[in-house]
Amino acid sequence: MSQSTNPNKDKIAKLIASKKKHLKSLTAPVLFEKILDGNIQALSESITLLESQNKNDYLLAQEVIKLVIPHTSKSIRIGITGVPGVGKSTFIESFGTHLTNLGHKVAVLAIDPSSEKSHGSILGDKTRMEKLSTNPNAYIRPTATSGSLGGVARKTRESILLCEAAGFDVILIETVGVGQSETAVHSMTDFFLLLMLAGAGDELQGIKRGIMEMADTILISKADGDNVKMANLARLDYKNALHLFPANQNNWIPKVETLSSLDKHGIDKCWKIISDFKDLTQKNGHFQIARNDQQKYWMNESLKDLILSEFYQSPNFKNIKQQIETDLENGNLTSFQAAEKIFKQLKK
Amino acid sequence: MSQSTNPNKDKIAKLIASKKKHLKSLTAPVLFEKILDGNIQALSESITLLESQNKNDYLLAQEVIKLVIPHTSKSIRIGITGVPGVGKSTFIESFGTHLTNLGHKVAVLAIDPSSEKSHGSILGDKTRMEKLSTNPNAYIRPTATSGSLGGVARKTRESILLCEAAGFDVILIETVGVGQSETAVHSMTDFFLLLMLAGAGDELQGIKRGIMEMADTILISKADGDNVKMANLARLDYKNALHLFPANQNNWIPKVETLSSLDKHGIDKCWKIISDFKDLTQKNGHFQIARNDQQKYWMNESLKDLILSEFYQSPNFKNIKQQIETDLENGNLTSFQAAEKIFKQLKK
Repeated sequence: MSQSTNPNKDKIAKLIASKKKHLKSLTAPVLFEKILDGNIQALSESITLLESQNKNDYLLAQEVIKLVIPHTSKSIRIGITGVPGVGKSTFIESFGTHLTNLGHKVAVLAIDPSSEKSHGSILGDKTRMEKLSTNPNAYIRPTATSGSLGGVARKTRESILLCEAAGFDVILIETVGVGQSETAVHSMTDFFLLLMLAGAGDELQGIKRGIMEMADTILISKADGDNVKMANLARLDYKNALHLFPANQNNWIPKVETLSSLDKHGIDKCWKIISDFKDLTQKNGHFQIARNDQQKYWMNESLKDLILSEFYQSPNFKNIKQQIETDLENGNLTSFQAAEKIFKQLKK
Repeated sequence: MSQSTNPNKDKIAKLIASKKKHLKSLTAPVLFEKILDGNIQALSESITLLESQNKNDYLLAQEVIKLVIPHTSKSIRIGITGVPGVGKSTFIESFGTHLTNLGHKVAVLAIDPSSEKSHGSILGDKTRMEKLSTNPNAYIRPTATSGSLGGVARKTRESILLCEAAGFDVILIETVGVGQSETAVHSMTDFFLLLMLAGAGDELQGIKRGIMEMADTILISKADGDNVKMANLARLDYKNALHLFPANQNNWIPKVETLSSLDKHGIDKCWKIISDFKDLTQKNGHFQIARNDQQKYWMNESLKDLILSEFYQSPNFKNIKQQIETDLENGNLTSFQAAEKIFKQLKK
């Protein structure tokens, strides 16, 4: 690529250098105090640190997180998913504004490991939520796109903790319903919201199988104008369908509602549902049970990631794997024999 | 426990010893030739070898499998699941008999890592399928219960290969719809069949969420006598529900039918559906695509198992993990910090 196509390059480089210098002067206790005070800049800087590839930044972020842990967990964490075009950002804009009007502090995070390819399909741009992004009681953080799903999940979970320590009591985590990221988001939230379009046609193709069964509530979006009738029909269909699913351990029966971010219809209902969910599960203990399970789940997943990535990073791994995969394709080995061969050759 | 409560103990010990001696005299080429000839005893012995904890047995089994690989893959592999009581064995008895009448050779395997606890809830007893077990064109193999899910999956996949080499062209793999084993069975079969009871009440509680979306066909079982009406209603409900699911990549639209193993109703229909599925996916290439994907999937899963189990078997692993889990529960660490701590302490 050409070296000097961007006339702003020097400017940007200077800006980054000055930012880095500024970050270097920060200490964990200072960041911690500021975050507890609800200082948005300190919150943003801490999230930047934990997303950084630089080892020192990472260590500093971990120090901050250790300090904030006792001040976390007091929020409701809500996962929101749906295919592109279903109206997630419009919903979050309306829903978030509704919540801040009720006196809540709302943080919006995103998890989308695919967005590096799709150039930030979600939250790459704050202008998608114009009103909410200038709301003093809301905080929107563009997604961390780089790295493995495990890495992105770690950053998102840690960002949740930082936001909670900064006083945000409703955390919205947005994801696109097309990849593995929904399972990750489902495993780090208390409540999982699926947005769907009426008309179960081609629009549905994008939603991955299995996601519908994770939903605590389905919202049929864009239920306005000519769409109202179709949305109401879709609502009944999904309601009947969800009824056939096995019951949740927490005794929650998933709800289906229509939604119009345009007419502001369904927004307050949605919050009512989430509040009912919180009441029910806090009373029967499943709110905390699920959080404890999530904590252990992520510990085990992270440990697996650490062990496996050490192995996968061995210098010969890729070559050896490719060779043996060819043997597998040619039908000379079973899957298990192939795996053993790779393992043994790398252990030599 | 008392040492001499069982008067048959000596007898059994002798029997096992003579069996072991017999197995020792076997060589891979001999077993291979016999299996290709359709010799059931050689097939059973080879499966016993691959289930054995003894290293030499295991190595011998692997030699046999290497020899049979070119003679495998010509079957249709069908996964069958449903909660206990739904009528799986009665269905397999009728379905298997129907297929042998059509000239097919039918092997029935089972995967059920939970059955050690539940004392072999499936296939522990051939008397469950009295007719099929004496049918010369059918082969029923009780489940391999011991070991991890990964280990049981390996044994089942390798047993499939041995059965195929012995000339069985329909492989039925049974599992109970309550654990993780369905995902494993789904990942090693061409077609996934879910048996359900009419009356979406308590009976459903046992089916794990997410399983319904894996089904290529749902059979509403026990649709006889007073149940017929309810079964037909359930059929329509499930049909509507499945219609709402996202489409399969292979263009297959999951079917829902009623079934009475008593009245022999639905048995031929079920085979017709599976044949249609095979035709469709062989034409559009997805039959082979899915098998290739499964092969790579199991290679990667097995490799992960090998890497992780080496780590988990380190002498201090359990102690260190327990200690750090306590820290996690007390809120002194994040999940990721806990994982890193375990990893570092064991790498010391």
